[in-house]
Amino acid sequence: MSTVEQQLDDLEEQITSELPADISVSSVKYEGPELVVYTRDPKKFAQKGDLIRQLASKLRKRITVRPDPSVLSRPETAREEIMNVIPEEAGVTDLDFHADTGEVVIEAQKPGMVIGRHGSTLRDITKNVGWTPEVVRTPPIESSTVSNVRNFLKQERDERRDVLERVGRQIHREEMSDDEYVRITTLGCCREVGRASFILSTPETRILIDCGDKPGAEGEVPYLHAPEALGAGPQTIDAVVLTHAHLDHSALIPLLFKYGYDGPIYCTEPTRDLMGLLTLDYLDVATKEGRTPPYESEMVREAIKHCIPLEYGDVTDIAPDVKLTFHNAGHILGSAVSHFHIGDGLYNVAFSGDIHYDDTRLFNGATNDFPRVETLVLESTYGGRNDYQTDQEESEEHLKEVINEVAERDGKVLIPAFAVGRSQEIMLVLEKAMREGEIPRMPVHLDGMIWEATAIHTTYPEYLRDDLRDRIFHDDENPFLADEFNHIDGGEEERQDVADGDSCIILSTSGMVTGGPIMSWLSHLGPDPDSSLVFVGYQAQGTLGRRIQNGWDEIPTSEVGAMGDSNGRGTLSLNMEVETVDGFSGHADREGLMNFVDTMNPRPEKVLCVHGDERSTQDLSSALYHDYNMRTFAPKNLETFRFL
Amino acid sequence: MSTVEQQLDDLEEQITSELPADISVSSVKYEGPELVVYTRDPKKFAQKGDLIRQLASKLRKRITVRPDPSVLSRPETAREEIMNVIPEEAGVTDLDFHADTGEVVIEAQKPGMVIGRHGSTLRDITKNVGWTPEVVRTPPIESSTVSNVRNFLKQERDERRDVLERVGRQIHREEMSDDEYVRITTLGCCREVGRASFILSTPETRILIDCGDKPGAEGEVPYLHAPEALGAGPQTIDAVVLTHAHLDHSALIPLLFKYGYDGPIYCTEPTRDLMGLLTLDYLDVATKEGRTPPYESEMVREAIKHCIPLEYGDVTDIAPDVKLTFHNAGHILGSAVSHFHIGDGLYNVAFSGDIHYDDTRLFNGATNDFPRVETLVLESTYGGRNDYQTDQEESEEHLKEVINEVAERDGKVLIPAFAVGRSQEIMLVLEKAMREGEIPRMPVHLDGMIWEATAIHTTYPEYLRDDLRDRIFHDDENPFLADEFNHIDGGEEERQDVADGDSCIILSTSGMVTGGPIMSWLSHLGPDPDSSLVFVGYQAQGTLGRRIQNGWDEIPTSEVGAMGDSNGRGTLSLNMEVETVDGFSGHADREGLMNFVDTMNPRPEKVLCVHGDERSTQDLSSALYHDYNMRTFAPKNLETFRFL
Repeated sequence: MSTVEQQLDDLEEQITSELPADISVSSVKYEGPELVVYTRDPKKFAQKGDLIRQLASKLRKRITVRPDPSVLSRPETAREEIMNVIPEEAGVTDLDFHADTGEVVIEAQKPGMVIGRHGSTLRDITKNVGWTPEVVRTPPIESSTVSNVRNFLKQERDERRDVLERVGRQIHREEMSDDEYVRITTLGCCREVGRASFILSTPETRILIDCGDKPGAEGEVPYLHAPEALGAGPQTIDAVVLTHAHLDHSALIPLLFKYGYDGPIYCTEPTRDLMGLLTLDYLDVATKEGRTPPYESEMVREAIKHCIPLEYGDVTDIAPDVKLTFHNAGHILGSAVSHFHIGDGLYNVAFSGDIHYDDTRLFNGATNDFPRVETLVLESTYGGRNDYQTDQEESEEHLKEVINEVAERDGKVLIPAFAVGRSQEIMLVLEKAMREGEIPRMPVHLDGMIWEATAIHTTYPEYLRDDLRDRIFHDDENPFLADEFNHIDGGEEERQDVADGDSCIILSTSGMVTGGPIMSWLSHLGPDPDSSLVFVGYQAQGTLGRRIQNGWDEIPTSEVGAMGDSNGRGTLSLNMEVETVDGFSGHADREGLMNFVDTMNPRPEKVLCVHGDERSTQDLSSALYHDYNMRTFAPKNLETFRFL
Repeated sequence: MSTVEQQLDDLEEQITSELPADISVSSVKYEGPELVVYTRDPKKFAQKGDLIRQLASKLRKRITVRPDPSVLSRPETAREEIMNVIPEEAGVTDLDFHADTGEVVIEAQKPGMVIGRHGSTLRDITKNVGWTPEVVRTPPIESSTVSNVRNFLKQERDERRDVLERVGRQIHREEMSDDEYVRITTLGCCREVGRASFILSTPETRILIDCGDKPGAEGEVPYLHAPEALGAGPQTIDAVVLTHAHLDHSALIPLLFKYGYDGPIYCTEPTRDLMGLLTLDYLDVATKEGRTPPYESEMVREAIKHCIPLEYGDVTDIAPDVKLTFHNAGHILGSAVSHFHIGDGLYNVAFSGDIHYDDTRLFNGATNDFPRVETLVLESTYGGRNDYQTDQEESEEHLKEVINEVAERDGKVLIPAFAVGRSQEIMLVLEKAMREGEIPRMPVHLDGMIWEATAIHTTYPEYLRDDLRDRIFHDDENPFLADEFNHIDGGEEERQDVADGDSCIILSTSGMVTGGPIMSWLSHLGPDPDSSLVFVGYQAQGTLGRRIQNGWDEIPTSEVGAMGDSNGRGTLSLNMEVETVDGFSGHADREGLMNFVDTMNPRPEKVLCVHGDERSTQDLSSALYHDYNMRTFAPKNLETFRFL
């Protein structure tokens, strides 16, 4: 008998002995990090409210209880009873019964009302019908991404369970080594921004953290082929952790599956959906630009199938010797500071991913409170000694001024923005400014993937800032549903109409002017001196956005996809004003980074400064050393640090 | 056509055009790092004395000229003519003709007389017979190792040529990467002494440097299984470099072949022979102690077959982007500071291996003069702040005192010594002291492999200290042939006789009292208070030698292999005096290590302090940083440092 089999037998015995005599256990299984307990008495189980929590704390495992298929009521009967239990205001839009696991997925406009106070309504459902309910939110704005992901996972349910069972057995395998070490290997984003990728390794376990591309630097991908990365085969990686969905962290996650990786990806639920959206777009852009995409869309689906979503604060076994906990990072929807607890008290490492320290309109500031952290891997995008950013309040004033000036001269405001994060932040600023009369009410056109990304935000309000979430939850005043917001879904024709029309604001991707509809907007509005191009986000080296910021005003037509001469050559004269409004970055500035470390409790012993150019990482590294007397490093790519 | 084929064609064309019209080239081939030129006119080639040197400098390659097999004279005829050319005093002991390559190997007691002034006699041989002569020394003391290695290589000549051709093509392959980096990965001997092993890697090339065991710590082997080591397969290693033959550097070299490695091992000729001797003994000891040896003796032969011997100072291409040069390290016979020149001016790394900075009786002090070195990997055995050793002169006085005292009380002096290096150093001290009347003439018994190791030393006098070499070469007064030295080849019976006899000195392996005949000597002499046990070398943590040094005087009989009670239990009381005579170490002490760096020209920018316990490496690292303002490190095992 394998050791996992033995373990499960022991667990079944232990659970049986812990449960009242009238509650039977028909089997126990691992599914990913969870222990699933099947019972022939689901209703009795649900009646004892605290039983699951008690078991979980006793066994130190995440536990799910499901009815044994033999005792399930018929879905038709169950459906009626369930709808009787759930209040009508919950707005149930779908019920989906899975007889193989006894689960019923309830999609509702107000999941909170399906759950009930402390889960009371959920328990009532089980008490009445025996089925185990799972609740998801009906997106308030229709999101094709969310519905595609959900439909796909429904369709792949069987295979996904196989994946989860396999992963579960991997996680709970016996530890083999009596060696002890903790190492971090840098595969990218060291002394540079882009291609984030690390390996965290112990004698038992190798975890890949992020796997992104480098914007504006085609071909510079993480060093996956290095012997210490995938050189010995993708099966040498036990788990992948994705801190957030931006492409410089996620773009090459699907590539891992092309290489044969077949293990789990841990991320938050919004990160999973946004990764789907962004990587499919990444393939699309590559094809449009005549490049060969590094993988096919099938691989994005593989990645999604292997995602194991975790919520902030869930302490999760992801290997025999590693527990992972995600915490809010304040950077984009679902972004997570990833905390690894290694070897039952041996060592703790936190990867900041990208963080924003202060609260923004969209998100709470990053969490920096952990039980223990010995080593912190810290982003350093704005870690340079002078990388102080304007306060957001001032930035908002500045943006409103720019908009008012442009409106006065009947121009248009064109804002290149990342679909995910900055766009929604700016939308909140604009909605408030119009609602409070600080800028004229005018259409705000959302082009590229911004609309879709916004829909995903409204699907996961739990991940938004407290007061914003409350507004959406309780007051039914979802600011993203304001009338001014218009989804550009009519292509070039609609753009031409907007360009020919009255004052307005346009938010369009890509955020660094490296492709996408912003190119079209540039060719429409570029020659208009009454309009303004307003940068609100970081423009990386080598991008057109950076070059325009640096003063380029003659852009080869080939770059914007506009008509040139008969040979397609020519230039576009940029006559519109070019403005940069700092302060809306999703990244902590120098002060925010220092504060993040300063207020950590306990402070880490060591900090690796990554995800910033050479100067930023070195400046931040030496500042942290001087101010807090920690051991700090500004690693290069392809180094390995050992901490024990 | 492969690029190597194309390259060889081009070279053939270029060589043909450089040569006088009457000298034909029938083919050119790579054999290991050498370019071999076959000609139908070997005699004419030999007549133009400088031709090969000119070609070599023009093509920047090491060139060997060989006769096309079609023009070879018959060996019987050639033999006579060769013997006519070589002076009788050369003492030729063997001629071995290889028709496939047109080489004749001449074994002689005085190789210098076969070579002649600036190689004139060798050229005369080719001028007369067409064959290409190669000269080796007849060991002045018969050495089974040397003769076994030579016979084995003769027998495996065909397969060895295949290996060399394959290696040659590997070395001269086209560079594939446009990335640039130089990295060192630590697989062992960091913050510890033992299991030396490193990987030096560039985007093109991965070189394994040393692969030793850890004395006194069974099971602690280099991290070969790490993904960045052999995790991605032994074929990911392009070359192995062996700095010297001590087991803590060489023991697991043959294991690489068991794992499937099939590439070259670069080392000096004495290192090759000593590795053969020591690894075969290592297997022997393991078997005797009831352990399963990690590989079979067949793998030692594989290792020897794949050795490519280099001489000190030879600059040798070992990869498209790496040139290796060995320099005298002063530590043991054939030990080499290994200098890597990477990427045609890009970067230079020197691995000290084990070094002795000052001259000893046996060797010149270590070379520290390189055209360029940016990073030095430095041994730190005695790097601790107080690790100063007695001057050798004082040590010799001390040793002589001890011997005189023991002689006065008619006792015996038992010296545990490494077979290789320290034994010969002590032999030279004893021979001189007796010759000069400073200690009484008495037998010096050599037990274990010391005799054989001494025979290997006398085979390679070029690797000994200048004046010692000259004595052996010119004056026919080889100190190792002194009458006092007696080879213990009569087993236990002879030992009993010696133990029962008069005052004498016994040098016996193992040097750290971890096995071998020293155990038998201990059980013979241990109870005798008139005798002395004299430590002259480093005793590692965990060895019996260290424990005796620390005061143990009751040794379980099981450890020395003596008779205990009827259950084999019991203890041996150690009544003999225990003395430690410092200063004969093969390692530089703290001052020597500091001097080695101090007098380097140019000084390296970075130093990695390895091969020392935690305190020694950290002390040395911080001293070098403070005194010379370099970046210094005391790495842990399993780290990777990137230098570019």
